Amino acid sequence: MNGNDENSENGKEKNDSARVTPWEVQGRIDYGRLIEEFGTQPISSEILEQFERITGEVHPMLNLHYFFSHRDLDSILRKVENREKIYLYTGRGPSGMVHMGHLMPWIFTKYLQDKFDSKLLFQITDDEKFLYSQDRTREEIKRFTYENILDIISVGFDSNNTKIIVDTKHIKHLYPISLEIAKRITFSTAKAVFGFSASTNIGMIGFPPIQAAPCLLPSLIEGKPTPVLIPAAIDQDPYWRITRDVAEKMGFYKPAQIHSKFLPSLDAPGGKMSSSKPGTAIFTTDEPEVTDKKVSNAFTGGQATVALQRLYGGNALECPVFWYLRYFFDDQKDSDERFVKCISGNLLCGECKSDLARESKSFIATLKKRREKAKDCIQKYMYDNVPFEI
Amino acid sequence: MNGNDENSENGKEKNDSARVTPWEVQGRIDYGRLIEEFGTQPISSEILEQFERITGEVHPMLNLHYFFSHRDLDSILRKVENREKIYLYTGRGPSGMVHMGHLMPWIFTKYLQDKFDSKLLFQITDDEKFLYSQDRTREEIKRFTYENILDIISVGFDSNNTKIIVDTKHIKHLYPISLEIAKRITFSTAKAVFGFSASTNIGMIGFPPIQAAPCLLPSLIEGKPTPVLIPAAIDQDPYWRITRDVAEKMGFYKPAQIHSKFLPSLDAPGGKMSSSKPGTAIFTTDEPEVTDKKVSNAFTGGQATVALQRLYGGNALECPVFWYLRYFFDDQKDSDERFVKCISGNLLCGECKSDLARESKSFIATLKKRREKAKDCIQKYMYDNVPFEI
Repeated sequence: MNGNDENSENGKEKNDSARVTPWEVQGRIDYGRLIEEFGTQPISSEILEQFERITGEVHPMLNLHYFFSHRDLDSILRKVENREKIYLYTGRGPSGMVHMGHLMPWIFTKYLQDKFDSKLLFQITDDEKFLYSQDRTREEIKRFTYENILDIISVGFDSNNTKIIVDTKHIKHLYPISLEIAKRITFSTAKAVFGFSASTNIGMIGFPPIQAAPCLLPSLIEGKPTPVLIPAAIDQDPYWRITRDVAEKMGFYKPAQIHSKFLPSLDAPGGKMSSSKPGTAIFTTDEPEVTDKKVSNAFTGGQATVALQRLYGGNALECPVFWYLRYFFDDQKDSDERFVKCISGNLLCGECKSDLARESKSFIATLKKRREKAKDCIQKYMYDNVPFEI
Repeated sequence: MNGNDENSENGKEKNDSARVTPWEVQGRIDYGRLIEEFGTQPISSEILEQFERITGEVHPMLNLHYFFSHRDLDSILRKVENREKIYLYTGRGPSGMVHMGHLMPWIFTKYLQDKFDSKLLFQITDDEKFLYSQDRTREEIKRFTYENILDIISVGFDSNNTKIIVDTKHIKHLYPISLEIAKRITFSTAKAVFGFSASTNIGMIGFPPIQAAPCLLPSLIEGKPTPVLIPAAIDQDPYWRITRDVAEKMGFYKPAQIHSKFLPSLDAPGGKMSSSKPGTAIFTTDEPEVTDKKVSNAFTGGQATVALQRLYGGNALECPVFWYLRYFFDDQKDSDERFVKCISGNLLCGECKSDLARESKSFIATLKKRREKAKDCIQKYMYDNVPFEI
């Protein structure tokens, strides 16, 4: 649920070496091709109209195609229009601290929660992140889990409508239903979807039903089949793909999905922001001087010299600073203007970097205050209302 | 943890079609060959001497070679001799009601608990039994779990020293440590040990670390590496084989094991007693007339007619009635006499059947009373002291 964006709808950036799995996002991503490969649907103008009918507007993340793909979104929005109760479900793999790329789908999820008055399950897959890396200890993951919970709460979810599930802590709620799911997925199916091999540990092979479980949990909580919408980055789609098959066989709704792109890495033209590479992203806990330095060192789409920039203009579409500003801080009109000024040579990288540093520091300063306050209300958000301590 | 016995130490009954896995025991079992195949050790006279030093006697199930094989039993008995604290761990897969074959290792486990003053973890793998069968529902498994718990308590374990773990109910205690185990087992290892294939469901592939977890749980409970001895039927050995490798890598003791044979099926010369085939075994809930009928219909090693029996004698080693009486009810001297009388033609099958029916009905009548009483004290035995209700 984080970042690597290339404006690849225009087809310029197709690259066969791109690789998108739940554990790995590599190379330049052609989102149009991902829609074809994953068999999802692009978000159509009809869907934007549905949103507008419900919310009275089209959220910028939809307008800007940051959320660009879906499964059954039209059908679940019809349910919302018919005032049917739906659940939202999203998650976080606590492999490190949270950066701005992680926040985007959460901010959109909070927006949907407010507009739809929906309950939200927020799953933290601490088990997955432990199983995936040979080096990480459970203690490290636990610390990241705690820190990530503060970020989640900082986004402002409604505590009455939000339950955070930490897999190892709340496994008793997930495990029974995960068995029902696991029983219906063969190794050959899982291998085809996730690319498991002989050297994959059996924890990873057994894990997908745990991530699938919150898709069905709302039906158990409500005592009747209950529709679920998952806002998340596109790399998580394989989990829901297998869940959708199983859910239907079990008599539940297939979980609907709305897929986001990734925020690009700050330090290179391609590549995803990464929790484990601090230089690639601005983290919610970065000190102002760290943010300044990261933005100052950021890769841009600018030319090698001011003179060349004035002459040829910059490559905004290749510029992470541009995309950060566009997705996060600029409104669309300002961003369109920034784009035109950049490509026509009327804007220097220093100006954009200065905007990004200022906006990011201000945003993070606010978030940090909320993170502090969050420490006192973790319990309210936890699935069992049991405090989470480290 | 149940029954198929052929007195195969003498090498007469070797049969290549025998198959022993945790989920399937088929064909006539050559226990000597199993020791070679599984790479376990036979129980030596030195070990019997160790037992005698500790308990002041040699339990009939050891003397009669019902427990016939082990891993590291000598080393864990030395710890017991040195008054080191050890845990016992055994389990039950609740795929049906409990029969007399299941009870034997439990009775021996209770004996060890009393003699060693050991804590016992008793795991009920309701998850495994659900995952293994396409037909079984979680509700059915839950009912069997409840009934099986009554049987376990009826054996007379010390409630202060015994904790029953029902996997789906107590998963939060098993799951974190199972992740540590799972991370250290590759699919290729699990495939080699358990014979997983492309059509195996991913729940089964992910399950072994859950059965391994109680081997390490005592070390977590005690806060230091704690030795564990597992009395169980030999078919469960693959689980502990992989656990032993992992435990050592994690800095824990390898779990020691003592392996039992199976009680033979009542209705055929080969084959294991089975929860799902009522005719093959005497169940703890059978009514007296049912027991009478099963014993009356039992296969025996007798000749076709009384005259032939008198002439040639019976084949006691092939006779489930003989083995039931020998393992369960006769003392060794009486059993040896029964053997000689049978093979010399001085005993008719009707007499043995009459003994078995009488003894079984009396045994079950007592057990049924204990099962009734057990209903009121389930909570005392459960891991969290949380009641188990259906």
